[in-house]
Amino acid sequence: MNVFLVHAHPEPKSLNGSLKDLAVDTLSGLGHEVQVSDLYTMRWKAVADAGDFADPGNSERLVYWRESKRAYLGGSQSEDVAAEQKKLLWADAVILQFPMWWFSVPAILKGWFERVFAYGFAYGVGQHGGERWGDRYGEGTLLGRRALVSVTIGGRAPHYSPRGVNGMLDDLLFPIQHGTLYYPGMAVLEPFVIYQADRLSLDDWAGIAERYRARLHSLFTDAPIPYRRQNGGHYDSQQVLKDGLGLGAAGTGIHLLRPGDPPEAPLAQP
Amino acid sequence: MNVFLVHAHPEPKSLNGSLKDLAVDTLSGLGHEVQVSDLYTMRWKAVADAGDFADPGNSERLVYWRESKRAYLGGSQSEDVAAEQKKLLWADAVILQFPMWWFSVPAILKGWFERVFAYGFAYGVGQHGGERWGDRYGEGTLLGRRALVSVTIGGRAPHYSPRGVNGMLDDLLFPIQHGTLYYPGMAVLEPFVIYQADRLSLDDWAGIAERYRARLHSLFTDAPIPYRRQNGGHYDSQQVLKDGLGLGAAGTGIHLLRPGDPPEAPLAQP
Repeated sequence: MNVFLVHAHPEPKSLNGSLKDLAVDTLSGLGHEVQVSDLYTMRWKAVADAGDFADPGNSERLVYWRESKRAYLGGSQSEDVAAEQKKLLWADAVILQFPMWWFSVPAILKGWFERVFAYGFAYGVGQHGGERWGDRYGEGTLLGRRALVSVTIGGRAPHYSPRGVNGMLDDLLFPIQHGTLYYPGMAVLEPFVIYQADRLSLDDWAGIAERYRARLHSLFTDAPIPYRRQNGGHYDSQQVLKDGLGLGAAGTGIHLLRPGDPPEAPLAQP
Repeated sequence: MNVFLVHAHPEPKSLNGSLKDLAVDTLSGLGHEVQVSDLYTMRWKAVADAGDFADPGNSERLVYWRESKRAYLGGSQSEDVAAEQKKLLWADAVILQFPMWWFSVPAILKGWFERVFAYGFAYGVGQHGGERWGDRYGEGTLLGRRALVSVTIGGRAPHYSPRGVNGMLDDLLFPIQHGTLYYPGMAVLEPFVIYQADRLSLDDWAGIAERYRARLHSLFTDAPIPYRRQNGGHYDSQQVLKDGLGLGAAGTGIHLLRPGDPPEAPLAQP
């Protein structure tokens, strides 16, 4: 299978760098093809701006999504953006390796999403109108691919527990896992998380490596997070979860399928 | 009073640009002093990397938080970073103006947080050790300042409602409002939100301007979001919300004070 790893850490000799290297070695050893985008090494352009469009449709006033759509559909995107989209389409699984900074991805990775996840590619896909809000959340261009977030966190696990002071990790990752990866159709796996990343000693590495190798071995067999499909019948015409669903779930957990839920409508044939 | 507005949109003639201009005019008209950091116009360096440190303590291996601490305490930070910290310390209120992209701030603003919110300035503040996890969440360097998120959103309001498919807006903003603004001590106001920002006509502007002006008039009188203080006695030694608190609240709402809660311990004297 094909695995695309997006790496966002400024220091090769960091825990993130070691996890990236481990993933490449392990996946290659399993016979998978691996491509890596090491955003810092590539000096990835993090900021979405007019410079992304060589031939703007409206040079008087930049409307980013409109130019993004024009460039995507017209084949005039920046080469760096088009190259990343090609890797996403090539991939059967996408791994994001990053440190959690201010409860989200580093800016360089945020900017990768903003520029690569173009209109027509990752959003604005499918029929919009009436009660149909496009192909998103379980449908879209990246349907059929898996996504794994591998994240290092400075704080302690209890601070990220369901009632921890930082907020529950699942809620903090929701904008990334649900809002960004599931949005264009990827099946998102449970995240691989290392807490207290700055407090580890060399002795801890063997255990971490073993734990991560196990996750990489089951990359194509682990059950994804059971997010509800937008067009599966569980949301009403205003895209609000229907009465009676998600009862007793906490926070963003209402968007997960639960035992006893009515079956979702089958995916429309492409 | 002093108001610091951080603006993150690439197009001056955008709705975000108009809201920024309206805020400057309105606040100045009220007799406040206003400073603006227009991140795109400033060509703000969005990516946190080794280039932020002229004199790294360890040039073999970058540990960003450690270099950040060293540079902050040693007075050797980048000039652009120090200048932004100075504006934050000058301010009585901070306004963030940005479009929601992929359910978070634009990368340029994310990178502003990563670089300006230095170790010793915004995190790693106060006593750490034993059962004390520093001065954060209601205490810290920026205590006494207010913060207002002014955000434009492409989607419709129901999609961001408590059971909306995108997730509840309060949950999506939690990493920003709680995790980034409240963390170093700012009192965070309810966000000012415009939905369907790309569908507005010129006719809609008068109503929006009126609504925003009202919020700006009450910038120093509106009650902040009643987040619990980390060191107010509601969290246990593992920073987990104590039993019996937050019952019946949804998601990140457990971190809000509720009628009937025991009073919080008074703030330690500085």
